[in-house]
Amino acid sequence: MNPESRSPAVPREFVDALRDGRNFLLSSHAHPDGDAIGAEVALARLLGTVGRSATIWNVDPAPATYAGVIGDMAIHVGPTPPPGFPGDFDFVLPLECPQLDRTGLEQSLGRLPILNMDHHLGNRLYGVANWVDTEAPAVAEMVLRLAHALNAPIDAATANALYLGLSTDTGSFRFSNATPRAFDAAAELVRLGARPEQIAGWLYESRPPGAVRLLGEVLETLELHCEQRIASVRLELDMFDRAGAAQTDSEGLIDHPRSIRGVEAVALFRERPVGDVKVSLRSRGRVDVGAIASRRGGGGHRNAAGCLIGSREDESGVIAELGAAVEATAQSGCTHATAPEGGT
Amino acid sequence: MNPESRSPAVPREFVDALRDGRNFLLSSHAHPDGDAIGAEVALARLLGTVGRSATIWNVDPAPATYAGVIGDMAIHVGPTPPPGFPGDFDFVLPLECPQLDRTGLEQSLGRLPILNMDHHLGNRLYGVANWVDTEAPAVAEMVLRLAHALNAPIDAATANALYLGLSTDTGSFRFSNATPRAFDAAAELVRLGARPEQIAGWLYESRPPGAVRLLGEVLETLELHCEQRIASVRLELDMFDRAGAAQTDSEGLIDHPRSIRGVEAVALFRERPVGDVKVSLRSRGRVDVGAIASRRGGGGHRNAAGCLIGSREDESGVIAELGAAVEATAQSGCTHATAPEGGT
Repeated sequence: MNPESRSPAVPREFVDALRDGRNFLLSSHAHPDGDAIGAEVALARLLGTVGRSATIWNVDPAPATYAGVIGDMAIHVGPTPPPGFPGDFDFVLPLECPQLDRTGLEQSLGRLPILNMDHHLGNRLYGVANWVDTEAPAVAEMVLRLAHALNAPIDAATANALYLGLSTDTGSFRFSNATPRAFDAAAELVRLGARPEQIAGWLYESRPPGAVRLLGEVLETLELHCEQRIASVRLELDMFDRAGAAQTDSEGLIDHPRSIRGVEAVALFRERPVGDVKVSLRSRGRVDVGAIASRRGGGGHRNAAGCLIGSREDESGVIAELGAAVEATAQSGCTHATAPEGGT
Repeated sequence: MNPESRSPAVPREFVDALRDGRNFLLSSHAHPDGDAIGAEVALARLLGTVGRSATIWNVDPAPATYAGVIGDMAIHVGPTPPPGFPGDFDFVLPLECPQLDRTGLEQSLGRLPILNMDHHLGNRLYGVANWVDTEAPAVAEMVLRLAHALNAPIDAATANALYLGLSTDTGSFRFSNATPRAFDAAAELVRLGARPEQIAGWLYESRPPGAVRLLGEVLETLELHCEQRIASVRLELDMFDRAGAAQTDSEGLIDHPRSIRGVEAVALFRERPVGDVKVSLRSRGRVDVGAIASRRGGGGHRNAAGCLIGSREDESGVIAELGAAVEATAQSGCTHATAPEGGT
């Protein structure tokens, strides 16, 4: 099955530019996610099969979770350029970057002609050729289509790398970008040798014990406010010790209070050694937590944002603002509650 | 796209039998899951579009999570037959039942000719017509193919019901049955109007607050044994009160210790009011927890089983047996550890 039959064609000028080059520098955004790593690894492998060379250069290392997909492919990490830069390279190809500065390497990368390949709204079209497909479920799906356009053979390891990107960017096919195109691409990748069960094992069944214990500690602090439409949890300094957890083990904690029925906004209050508190905010639908974070000098988007507050005493103020934001979007108001309902 | 091009055809005698009937009684197994409910609801709707009638009769009620898929369709629940039984019905059609007694209604259902439709290995072929496709990722996928064979139109609500079955039985496309057929079916269902994001919201973002608190309580009891290859947690009676949790809120708790890196076997010890302890066991790969449960008078399969023990004092014996089972399948043995490593 050819997914291009249902997707817009790869722009001719993009394919032509790619055919003009011999040696490519691939990059993606800081803190690379599954789509960044999966698309980079797959594209590097594919370029190799059509007689080109590719080097991956990211500012941040890949999470250990993706090691199985990276295999023995070398990824150059950090601000120092890889050997041969820039003279040996014909093009730089940033993946998944709406702006070049998302790479964290923009001071260096701008010296080379850029082929810009992305699926984000608002991409700044900063390349000598730009392929921005906002309907693509993942950049990995665009790489799959590019392979077809280049007549590049796709082996099982490449298919697995693309599947990593597709499955992580669609939230295991649970987000709104779990479109027919996403499933068409998944079917093709599995036919080519991708292994969904293996990828899921790496992503979801390889949690450090400390992360699981830390989740237990944090959930013990769960409080509901405002007729259970707001949830808050606290991450205290001594929890890491008690749980035997690393700092990175706090990833994903906020998803649990967010999964509670009827909850529209969530705050995670994380104590920092310097004495202040980092606030992570999440919301569903029209509740704008970005505005709340912005008023306190933080940043983010409508449904995901963050800021700093001086101390735990200020937490109730944040909850009150969340209450106002929830009320502002609701048909019926909810009683302001800085005191928790229920809770432990 | 027609998934039959890649799947075995629906057996002619099954389609013929179905065409012979006018009024069908649909059933599935006790404690119906997403595939049972999704396939039943979809098949009842499809039969309606081709001039047939259908009534769903299950011994147990559907989980509240599936209410959005059931909509206004009536499901008859419990051991008492629905009105008109058996005279008004031409066939009974059990879905997802390798044996008729899995319905919990076998005393009644056996009076009618049976059309047996299932994807389980070891199905007993107890029908007048049997369609058992062990390669089908879900019975919902078989219903989709049956709709094609019957030329029955598939509306968005029917597609959504089938998507529920497909996504739950494949573990959100994370299990080994996330095959090309599964993804082909998903692509078709989403084109027909299924909404993956809506289904995921119902399944994973509608948790009762008590369930989330109970998870916190249980994870506080996490212990690792045998070089972190065994994990155990305890569910104590007073946790339900403290968490404000219902008995059904314990579902899925065991998945968390099971998700820890390197863990091969898990035990959940659940205190019961009568004083004994219910043991739920899970394992990966070749570790056989079914044998352990069986020796203690319980039952189950290699990777999922359960039994009862007299008291908490017997828990260490279960852990020791798990240790032996893990050792038996491993290249290298692990030091028997009835005392936890780490833990809180």
